Amino acid sequence: MKVIWNDKIVERSEVKIDMEDRGYQFADGIYDVVRAYNGKFFTLNEHVDRLFSSAEKIELVMPFTKDELKQLLSTLMKENGISTGNIYMQVTRGIGIPRNHTYTDPELVPPVFTATTTIVPRDQEKMDQGMSAFIVPDMRWLRCDIKSISLLGNIMAKHEAHKKGGDEAILHRDGIVTECSSSNVWMIKDDTIYTHPDGNLVLPGITKIMLLKVAREAGMLVKEEAFTIEDLKKADEVFASSTTMEAMPIVSIDGNPVGHGQRGAVVEKLQQLYVDAVEKECGQIR
Amino acid sequence: MKVIWNDKIVERSEVKIDMEDRGYQFADGIYDVVRAYNGKFFTLNEHVDRLFSSAEKIELVMPFTKDELKQLLSTLMKENGISTGNIYMQVTRGIGIPRNHTYTDPELVPPVFTATTTIVPRDQEKMDQGMSAFIVPDMRWLRCDIKSISLLGNIMAKHEAHKKGGDEAILHRDGIVTECSSSNVWMIKDDTIYTHPDGNLVLPGITKIMLLKVAREAGMLVKEEAFTIEDLKKADEVFASSTTMEAMPIVSIDGNPVGHGQRGAVVEKLQQLYVDAVEKECGQIR
Repeated sequence: MKVIWNDKIVERSEVKIDMEDRGYQFADGIYDVVRAYNGKFFTLNEHVDRLFSSAEKIELVMPFTKDELKQLLSTLMKENGISTGNIYMQVTRGIGIPRNHTYTDPELVPPVFTATTTIVPRDQEKMDQGMSAFIVPDMRWLRCDIKSISLLGNIMAKHEAHKKGGDEAILHRDGIVTECSSSNVWMIKDDTIYTHPDGNLVLPGITKIMLLKVAREAGMLVKEEAFTIEDLKKADEVFASSTTMEAMPIVSIDGNPVGHGQRGAVVEKLQQLYVDAVEKECGQIR
Repeated sequence: MKVIWNDKIVERSEVKIDMEDRGYQFADGIYDVVRAYNGKFFTLNEHVDRLFSSAEKIELVMPFTKDELKQLLSTLMKENGISTGNIYMQVTRGIGIPRNHTYTDPELVPPVFTATTTIVPRDQEKMDQGMSAFIVPDMRWLRCDIKSISLLGNIMAKHEAHKKGGDEAILHRDGIVTECSSSNVWMIKDDTIYTHPDGNLVLPGITKIMLLKVAREAGMLVKEEAFTIEDLKKADEVFASSTTMEAMPIVSIDGNPVGHGQRGAVVEKLQQLYVDAVEKECGQIR
């Protein structure tokens, strides 16, 4: 299996991360995940743009141009023979010796880039049946718009949901629903689709942006407005969106059924519209 | 230079951190720093206890007992010939392949432990003259009581202060002063010493606990009470405390002098009491 290490494609076994990499000691880095269908990337430009935007927000100087990065990612996917799967990439501020909170000088310390691929088939059964979620307080930092590797709050939230037997955690801050632990969250009430607006409390999900676009183009009513736990509990339908899950119905929350406890008609429609968009770029997937 | 890698003392060059170590991809780990004077650790038990407490809070199963850890740390300091310096240690939840937010099974995936030493002399001049600070919003997560490696919020805050020419960032959450980016913060008003109480918003600093103890034993009036930015700006004296800085006067905030702009009498007294405590355990340091 090959991976990207800085600007080279190498065997995974060759990669050696330094124990004083700032990514390891300070979570001083950013990441992104791009999905491919039929060997073709979906929304590659959007993901690469977001990675560069995250870098800018933490003043991390990227080690290559967007075009160079896209070329590297495409080559890796081909070399690993990934048809339907994900590429995970991260960039850290490099090796800081001795350990010091102060940012390293980008002229002297190059960032460290790594990327791996994974075969991830579409889970059509799960997308039909939906998943379960539990509501957990949002303990994360106030810059959730940065796709950073500082993710301990996210994984602790997901773990809380798992301990209760759920698939995902729906996070709330003082009663306002923000997002899930690794996806955006949406609710549908009286045929209107709601999701938290962009800002510092949620990630600007690429799948979210795509879903907003296709929903609006199809004439569906969408409001980027925050909603409360109480609203969520009375919703007709709820779903989560992410690069891997696409639009994933949430059919139970805290052990109680959402609506009639099955995937609803609006989510099903959004799933179809999303797959239409994927197929336009990547060919048939259903 | 030697380091600890898992349960062994090895040459630093031998250490290879995996690119899919959960510490690197999720900041899924904890750390602590212990200081030695004259080749003897100060408050070693307290730091080791806190490391184990941080581990428990994120359900990370430590790879050895407290006694085994203390033995390893002592051996490393001797092998590296560190007299006055720090030992940094961190533990992550181990290597998770493929990347997945879900906690790995501790029965199957061992944690990864690393530790390095650094010679760090006491900076008496800085402790006499004091440092400058700037007030920055506290954007960190709501579990600052866990000494986790999920530190991007901390380093971004420190960077904000550095950009303005300051040494440290004093953080506030909605106007309430919490701590600094890598230290606890205190103020003195009318001979009463104030610092934010323990809880989820601040780290339970070992130096803070020691300073509270020696101050109370010396009959000084100490209140573990939150205070506002406005209180801070009217304080007679302000200082920060950490393992390396001990009690460090803050003589200017946002470019304005604190009190008369020099180290005050109360901070100086606390510095002496702290050094008394160090000398009782580690021998003469002044």
